Amino acid sequence: MAGNTFGTLFRLSTFGESHGIALGGIIDGCPAGLTIDPDFIQQELNRRRPGQSHIVTQRKEGDKVEFLSGLFEGKTTGTPIGFIIYNENQKSKDYDHNIDVYRPSHADYTYDSKYGIRDHRGGGRSSARETVARTVGGAVAKLLLQQQHISVQAFVSQVGHLKLVTPYTALDLSKTENTIVRCPDEGMAVQMINYIEEIRKAGDTIGGCITCVIKGMPAGLGEPVFDKLHADLAKAMLGINAVKGFEYGSGFDSAAYKGSELNDIFEAGASGRIGLKSNNSGGIQGGISNGEDIYFRVVFKPVATIMQVQATVNSKGEETEIRGKGRHDPCVLPRAVPIVESMAALVIADHLLRHRSSRV
Amino acid sequence: MAGNTFGTLFRLSTFGESHGIALGGIIDGCPAGLTIDPDFIQQELNRRRPGQSHIVTQRKEGDKVEFLSGLFEGKTTGTPIGFIIYNENQKSKDYDHNIDVYRPSHADYTYDSKYGIRDHRGGGRSSARETVARTVGGAVAKLLLQQQHISVQAFVSQVGHLKLVTPYTALDLSKTENTIVRCPDEGMAVQMINYIEEIRKAGDTIGGCITCVIKGMPAGLGEPVFDKLHADLAKAMLGINAVKGFEYGSGFDSAAYKGSELNDIFEAGASGRIGLKSNNSGGIQGGISNGEDIYFRVVFKPVATIMQVQATVNSKGEETEIRGKGRHDPCVLPRAVPIVESMAALVIADHLLRHRSSRV
Amino acid sequence: MAGNTFGTLFRLSTFGESHGIALGGIIDGCPAGLTIDPDFIQQELNRRRPGQSHIVTQRKEGDKVEFLSGLFEGKTTGTPIGFIIYNENQKSKDYDHNIDVYRPSHADYTYDSKYGIRDHRGGGRSSARETVARTVGGAVAKLLLQQQHISVQAFVSQVGHLKLVTPYTALDLSKTENTIVRCPDEGMAVQMINYIEEIRKAGDTIGGCITCVIKGMPAGLGEPVFDKLHADLAKAMLGINAVKGFEYGSGFDSAAYKGSELNDIFEAGASGRIGLKSNNSGGIQGGISNGEDIYFRVVFKPVATIMQVQATVNSKGEETEIRGKGRHDPCVLPRAVPIVESMAALVIADHLLRHRSSRV
Amino acid sequence: MAGNTFGTLFRLSTFGESHGIALGGIIDGCPAGLTIDPDFIQQELNRRRPGQSHIVTQRKEGDKVEFLSGLFEGKTTGTPIGFIIYNENQKSKDYDHNIDVYRPSHADYTYDSKYGIRDHRGGGRSSARETVARTVGGAVAKLLLQQQHISVQAFVSQVGHLKLVTPYTALDLSKTENTIVRCPDEGMAVQMINYIEEIRKAGDTIGGCITCVIKGMPAGLGEPVFDKLHADLAKAMLGINAVKGFEYGSGFDSAAYKGSELNDIFEAGASGRIGLKSNNSGGIQGGISNGEDIYFRVVFKPVATIMQVQATVNSKGEETEIRGKGRHDPCVLPRAVPIVESMAALVIADHLLRHRSSRV
Repeated sequence: MAGNTFGTLFRLSTFGESHGIALGGIIDGCPAGLTIDPDFIQQELNRRRPGQSHIVTQRKEGDKVEFLSGLFEGKTTGTPIGFIIYNENQKSKDYDHNIDVYRPSHADYTYDSKYGIRDHRGGGRSSARETVARTVGGAVAKLLLQQQHISVQAFVSQVGHLKLVTPYTALDLSKTENTIVRCPDEGMAVQMINYIEEIRKAGDTIGGCITCVIKGMPAGLGEPVFDKLHADLAKAMLGINAVKGFEYGSGFDSAAYKGSELNDIFEAGASGRIGLKSNNSGGIQGGISNGEDIYFRVVFKPVATIMQVQATVNSKGEETEIRGKGRHDPCVLPRAVPIVESMAALVIADHLLRHRSSRV
Repeated sequence: MAGNTFGTLFRLSTFGESHGIALGGIIDGCPAGLTIDPDFIQQELNRRRPGQSHIVTQRKEGDKVEFLSGLFEGKTTGTPIGFIIYNENQKSKDYDHNIDVYRPSHADYTYDSKYGIRDHRGGGRSSARETVARTVGGAVAKLLLQQQHISVQAFVSQVGHLKLVTPYTALDLSKTENTIVRCPDEGMAVQMINYIEEIRKAGDTIGGCITCVIKGMPAGLGEPVFDKLHADLAKAMLGINAVKGFEYGSGFDSAAYKGSELNDIFEAGASGRIGLKSNNSGGIQGGISNGEDIYFRVVFKPVATIMQVQATVNSKGEETEIRGKGRHDPCVLPRAVPIVESMAALVIADHLLRHRSSRV
Repeated sequence: MAGNTFGTLFRLSTFGESHGIALGGIIDGCPAGLTIDPDFIQQELNRRRPGQSHIVTQRKEGDKVEFLSGLFEGKTTGTPIGFIIYNENQKSKDYDHNIDVYRPSHADYTYDSKYGIRDHRGGGRSSARETVARTVGGAVAKLLLQQQHISVQAFVSQVGHLKLVTPYTALDLSKTENTIVRCPDEGMAVQMINYIEEIRKAGDTIGGCITCVIKGMPAGLGEPVFDKLHADLAKAMLGINAVKGFEYGSGFDSAAYKGSELNDIFEAGASGRIGLKSNNSGGIQGGISNGEDIYFRVVFKPVATIMQVQATVNSKGEETEIRGKGRHDPCVLPRAVPIVESMAALVIADHLLRHRSSRV
Repeated sequence: MAGNTFGTLFRLSTFGESHGIALGGIIDGCPAGLTIDPDFIQQELNRRRPGQSHIVTQRKEGDKVEFLSGLFEGKTTGTPIGFIIYNENQKSKDYDHNIDVYRPSHADYTYDSKYGIRDHRGGGRSSARETVARTVGGAVAKLLLQQQHISVQAFVSQVGHLKLVTPYTALDLSKTENTIVRCPDEGMAVQMINYIEEIRKAGDTIGGCITCVIKGMPAGLGEPVFDKLHADLAKAMLGINAVKGFEYGSGFDSAAYKGSELNDIFEAGASGRIGLKSNNSGGIQGGISNGEDIYFRVVFKPVATIMQVQATVNSKGEETEIRGKGRHDPCVLPRAVPIVESMAALVIADHLLRHRSSRV
């Protein structure tokens, strides 16, 4: 109940702080007999890794995962999969000047309010470094989904004012990894990269959006009424650092539409399958997948640490000021793409298993 | 795990279908010694009740709740609070023509896909009628919050293209109940009411947004990393019928901002308290409340049932058409205000109790 | 977390007090498509009902269950099954003399210690009357097990010093319901009945044991390491009022045995099946069922309410005395048989569903 | 739901196999601000460690625990405590002859039945080596209990036919650690040690019982109706390898007693406190602690691995035979004492936190 476990049947528990000895976790409930491809998992970690391009933080972290249990001769055994990622490149001294100062729009003040004690180094548990463990869990979930021919693909659809308005159906998502900003539209990608460079030089940061698409979904996943598939996706996304909002299908635009305009009309599809003339529902109706693509959008605020002087207070409530040190992301979006995918994959994997109890 | 329970320590489980014998639920984990005001609870139900004005459905439901357990001499005893609301005004025959037809953008098809069997009458379990039980649970949660001087107030901030842009801090929320549309800005309320009337006459429906504000929050509520306070609020909101998105604080606008613009600067507040110069964080930092107002926005799609002919298919995949019958809401927003408040109150009550374990 | 829900996937939540308006519950997670036989369920309730014979309490309770949701045309729909049993024969005045007095070996004092408030009428929530809801849940679980050809049969194997030493394999369990004491050995049954009569006349009560046998078990149920099948059975049994101990297979006798004596030797069984030369393991090895019969034994202390004067204290800590009033069981064992079966059935049903996630 | 997590608010999740790279776990929900004494934790591990005396297995395991997160400057921070114990002395080859053979009364066959795949080395996940992680979790729980002046002390009360009949109240429990068999009665301890030696020389194993006493309990812990304090203790104990039964207070003896004999009579205690003339209730009434000592007894079957030839079958169902190899315990009781204490401490720590939500 302390919030470090995600999922019900396919569960990920994580531990670790930004500048502690190691981060890691336990994947519990992964069915036995799944072949684990360590290269795929490392590749997912590399997509999230600091230092991967000039528009992300230049911190150096090997981010090598070691699996400690739950596997035998390359397959899952049904027992818990423990894993660990040692922290290597800790420059905790970068944070010594922060011991007693509350960084604006960070979690320093609230952690102190809650626990009365706080590991100040690099944000401790509140650091986005924690998502390295989610990426491992998500990669295992993806392997389970691949078996069912379900894919989860995210991409950067907005950076600052630069917004990709093309619907995802008109994009070639296989191009996402072609650019360091992870936007499948090459023209837009170039603009985004240049803009992030500009922001970085100004010692500032910028927000943006990620769009995620899940293809190959079977109909029937999701547990009404409280654990609707999109409700669990929303929780998964809002649990990612810096996320401020979630919408699926027609999302916030729905407010301005009439039912006669927005309803998805069923039609007789090919080979007896039931089809749909539109997908404003985003692949989910009544909280249950209908077999169409699921798509949703997630917004990230700009990284709170900026390379500028900011006014703030210390833990005694005295006014002071702070200047960001260390190696930070000017824009978290490119590295957040695999995290969004990971959390989405965890949700779908969990609901795949939950669905197995639906019928006698 | 079948999705009919919400919360961890303060828990609401619900049961019941639109046209079954009764709906109801169990509130478990409510601390002992709380005075229950039955009038307040009934009043909350009345705010949600059909037939309360000419812009909502004209169905007649008494929506009288009977408490069956967990109370003694007007107070909670710490044991589970069972409650029941009998269905009175069932016109199941209104739905006979739908037995085999999948209503567009409803849950008929997905329930069949999941369970292989479906109570077709009025949408069965997928009907928003289920939220009557949430309103009871939310009302009890509100009583617990009142003890801690926490208030939860929602209002309609958008209907179709009519969007209230005034920030909530410039509104008088005590006026929300003055108009049948539950918008505290009287001028906008009149426009909204007229527009909904127009939509209703056209046999159509319209979407909109609700804004919710939580005042009097203590700092420290929320459980990082997966059960961030806003992640649980997001899940709560997306679990409400017809909701398509959630944003808190600066929300989706955050995408276009720089860190230097969006960061909330701490300042020395009155009497040693730490203050903030802005509240783009929406009262939550790192998933934990910081003592400022929490505010968020929820979008509802237009009601799927329209009084117009729509093409669709039946369960055999054959094309057919359907025309809405019965008594439906042209706009669900006015009646959804207490539901949004209820779900928010359940989240905060749960986290109040969870927070009790934070320190030795 | 407040302890009123049992199970993980197949879940029963109960509510209600001995002298409140009604008891009831929600069965959540029952798979869709299960035919519900209301006669069978009522018959199970009748096996537990007061007044069924002269050796049990003479209270009159119709114990009619009404299903409120989750069923459609006689089958489960996968949605929560709400049910209610109204209290009819409340003689709350029988308890007025107890308002302020702590009955020996009852839960009066501990409920006050925990909650600071208590419904004193008939023990309130701590009354064994709560098990009426478990019987409904257990009956539905039994219907699910029947589909899988799994049976759960319990019988009274000890009353006071009268202990049935015949192994269950040498008994004809179909005779259990032939006697009012629910012991399948007719000679022993007569002795037990006479002894209970004697105890009753002396205004006293007596303890005993129930043995439970589960036949038709598939191999593979149970979740190591903490949710071993027998661990969940133990919890289920110790959760029944008045139970003081649980043992399975060779149980407490195991202490005095050597490995060379107690080990169950595998042998080549009929038609390729793996057999066992003995079943000291009680059908469970490493927490997982091995396909043999599961059997276990549960001990009940004598009912705490006796028709004799006892010294005690009141809530102010002042010494006083108390004499049992009302209509109580001299021996709870005969009526506890269906309760033991119900709790066991809930455990097995839950693990049947949990097992569905074991393999890819 | 896969059974590798114990507790609700104070939670231990474990991972690891007997001959894998490492075992470990996550303690989640431990309140912030608790001072962690690493020496105490290592000392608890040493009590469980192989090779500690000549009557236990002579395997060599350093059993050094490394904490990876959740601590800062010697105190808990409220974030998850990850820990790891590397396996050092793996002689996996000892098990090569077992790859395909089902050891009698072990979990080989059932793991295969459940998962279709199995790490055969040393029993894999089913090995009692997993309890090393429970000992770490239990040690942290004990530190939390010490703050509340609650102690958990277990001792060996039976080995084979050698049964200590002295009630625990007449024993000096501080002497438990004086003998390698962990029996506080020195005369009995000598007999037990000699008997275990004899059993070991015969290549056999022997069962026994452990009694556990919890002193300093506050009244009010436990969550009726399903999560009674003793129900959670029972589940905790039955979750330990080789345990076959649990009884608390008057336990199985209760069957032969009358209510007039067994009831615990309240009396006016010293300084206004309510006292009890006897403690047959074992410190728990209605599932809630009453402030008296909790005591219970747990039975262990003899270790299944014996140094003798046994008939068995292989995974094809063919008959074969097996002889135990490696270094095994002739009697698991002495090393199980800290495990029983650990599991009990986890239960009490969890209920201490759960109890915090009992009242407004």
